[in-house]
Amino acid sequence: MAELELIAAIQATLGAPAARVVRATGDDAAVVRARPLAVTSIDTVAAGVHFDLATSSPGDVGHKALATALSDLAAMGAEAGEAYVSLALPARFADADALELARGMAALAEQTGTTIAGGDVVRAGALVIAVSVTGWAATEDELVGRDGAQPGDVLGVTGELGAAGAGLLLLSDRSAAVGDAVREALLDRHLRPQPRLAAGRALAHAGATAMIDLSDGLATDGRHLARASGVALELHSEALPLAPGVAEVAAAVGRNPRELAIAAGEDYELLFTIPPERWDAAVAASDIPLKRLGRALEGEGIHFQGSDAADLDAVRGYQHL
Amino acid sequence: MAELELIAAIQATLGAPAARVVRATGDDAAVVRARPLAVTSIDTVAAGVHFDLATSSPGDVGHKALATALSDLAAMGAEAGEAYVSLALPARFADADALELARGMAALAEQTGTTIAGGDVVRAGALVIAVSVTGWAATEDELVGRDGAQPGDVLGVTGELGAAGAGLLLLSDRSAAVGDAVREALLDRHLRPQPRLAAGRALAHAGATAMIDLSDGLATDGRHLARASGVALELHSEALPLAPGVAEVAAAVGRNPRELAIAAGEDYELLFTIPPERWDAAVAASDIPLKRLGRALEGEGIHFQGSDAADLDAVRGYQHL
Repeated sequence: MAELELIAAIQATLGAPAARVVRATGDDAAVVRARPLAVTSIDTVAAGVHFDLATSSPGDVGHKALATALSDLAAMGAEAGEAYVSLALPARFADADALELARGMAALAEQTGTTIAGGDVVRAGALVIAVSVTGWAATEDELVGRDGAQPGDVLGVTGELGAAGAGLLLLSDRSAAVGDAVREALLDRHLRPQPRLAAGRALAHAGATAMIDLSDGLATDGRHLARASGVALELHSEALPLAPGVAEVAAAVGRNPRELAIAAGEDYELLFTIPPERWDAAVAASDIPLKRLGRALEGEGIHFQGSDAADLDAVRGYQHL
Repeated sequence: MAELELIAAIQATLGAPAARVVRATGDDAAVVRARPLAVTSIDTVAAGVHFDLATSSPGDVGHKALATALSDLAAMGAEAGEAYVSLALPARFADADALELARGMAALAEQTGTTIAGGDVVRAGALVIAVSVTGWAATEDELVGRDGAQPGDVLGVTGELGAAGAGLLLLSDRSAAVGDAVREALLDRHLRPQPRLAAGRALAHAGATAMIDLSDGLATDGRHLARASGVALELHSEALPLAPGVAEVAAAVGRNPRELAIAAGEDYELLFTIPPERWDAAVAASDIPLKRLGRALEGEGIHFQGSDAADLDAVRGYQHL
């Protein structure tokens, strides 16, 4: 297809824009009725670095490219708004695959109330997808940065950890003693992560003082939060909520499952701090389970307690680039 | 450098954020105080497709990546706001070049009042730069789409045409009989296009009914405007404002300079329609000269008048992808 035909075919995969969108794709720029605060992040995924087309379908890639961007809005407590998508496609990338990629992205957009309001499609030497997402908030109080943790705050995490890392391992080593349902769930967490938008907003509303999404792993992202807030984080290693199957997959490759869970990244759960008296409200408001991991205190860095504390303290999470 | 060091070095090239920017880079997302309407576009440039590192410096590439995105805001009449930058860098791309690219972008941001408020830096198989820009407006009346041209409107264009195309030709064929200053000016228009932000706002304020930036050439972009508005555009070929040197460069390669000017693209001038009685106000308000090219009338497509009309009518501009 020529550019305009491919763009038109991609546009046809998109759902109807939200009412706030005055002009979507088709003009020089999209026009959106703003709320008082715009919350924006841009994220990029590249073939051979962030995904492997031998194991990810084009639909998985489209889903993941949008999910990783939306996860940043979740970590701020923002309401998802619009996405603007840059698709750089190698000449050998089939139009049908580009459309499947767009459909994977459009399905997640629909599920999360996000309007894909603009985009650009170009040829390039590699498959690279950049997604800029804008969310909205009424006041700064509705949003949570990385920098507000206070000594004495509880440290918590949404959902379960290690699933994405275990799913990635399963793609190359199928020897782990896990059942089919667990295997599928782990692969799905790796291939199609879910941005925790509702939980992020609930935590912000409940009084979270700092929040970050676990893209690079708790070992790395926890340090980012600690550094930005000027606190230390103390975690109980037994408290890490391992996803079903993580222990078996880690055992198959001779790794401590907790080490896998904090090093592997891409779980896209939310790590947050909150005053102790707000914990119960947060648990009640969140659509997914919250787990208490430890607390913030004076100092710096992250520090585990438990029998494997020394091993976990030594972990550095995934370093991009 | 490791990822975080390179990102920190890039951040150090950026100017201070505008007052409306509550949080810039360093958290999960940027937070910006919104005006009533957000105007957003994403644009992508890829090595080997949109630029050639043999002839463009990294600073040129950074400038052009932001300029092409800002040009879309100019074409809407929006006030430039924030840019969010995705840099996909091949492993062989030197950190020093990445920093020069960032400096080229930061200089244009400073010049245009744009805050680079967020970004992502990843490794990839090719150099691909995506820039999402958000501008702002108070009301829909301040903005101009492609779709408002009315029969009877004057058709106009900012500045001069053909310079970027002639500059591109000069990179591969130096035989044209142009002086050094003209040569430099043409190369500069190709390597470092200027988004017409002030002119775009002035034209919107003066009453332009439709507007588009000339990224793919007047032959293509004029058809986009005509189709979106449901009008025909009639142009006088003698009225095309050729930049100095375009005639000589075209002659050296045996092309009609007007054909070069409407086919080559990347001039990033603004093509617009405006009611005749608003023309003088537009000329008075614009910071660069405006040229009357013709008019909108009932019908479709673009139609030239003049001795070379048949040749120019047959031109299709640059088709990406």
